[in-house]
Amino acid sequence: MALLEPPYIAVYITSTLSDDLDGYDELNDRMVKLSEEQPGYLGRESLPGKGNEERVVIYWADEESLKGWRLHPEHQVAMRAGRERYYLSYDIRVARVEREYGFRGAAAG
Amino acid sequence: MALLEPPYIAVYITSTLSDDLDGYDELNDRMVKLSEEQPGYLGRESLPGKGNEERVVIYWADEESLKGWRLHPEHQVAMRAGRERYYLSYDIRVARVEREYGFRGAAAG
Repeated sequence: MALLEPPYIAVYITSTLSDDLDGYDELNDRMVKLSEEQPGYLGRESLPGKGNEERVVIYWADEESLKGWRLHPEHQVAMRAGRERYYLSYDIRVARVEREYGFRGAAAG
Repeated sequence: MALLEPPYIAVYITSTLSDDLDGYDELNDRMVKLSEEQPGYLGRESLPGKGNEERVVIYWADEESLKGWRLHPEHQVAMRAGRERYYLSYDIRVARVEREYGFRGAAAG
């Protein structure tokens, strides 16, 4: 993803999916769409995982917007479904991006 | 990777490799080994990338240990080789991990 303007919040989620995924894609699509409508949403990146592992990073403007999303009623219901059915496990890291920089070589086009 | 004890520093590097990779693996292995010997080094994760993309996250205890690594003479030489030969481009995000939490479902074993 293009570089953003620090500081901002990055939420790194690594999850392991169960094999009970009926309805998962629809719920996930809905949550992606809903999160994109929230104030302070900056973007997301899905990273390739191994096997039934999923990795996603979601960027938020600040702690307040992340908190708003965490407490969103529809998201709360979805998170509960995640814990009860769809995820065997997950790890979440909440980080504050302090600075970032890029390098573009002559050959990078 | 196992969860660590926040706060700590996470350096997220996404790089695109050139096709001039003669000596790259040896240099990379040496840098991994050298970084592991530095004070404040906590660990690393290599994530699968697409095509010639590489992703790695390196964890440091604090800004001071990251700075020590950034200024390490042998690492400085390696970074220069990276910019001159091995990388078409890279993006580096430096983040402070504020908190983290995990979920283990009943079926996670």
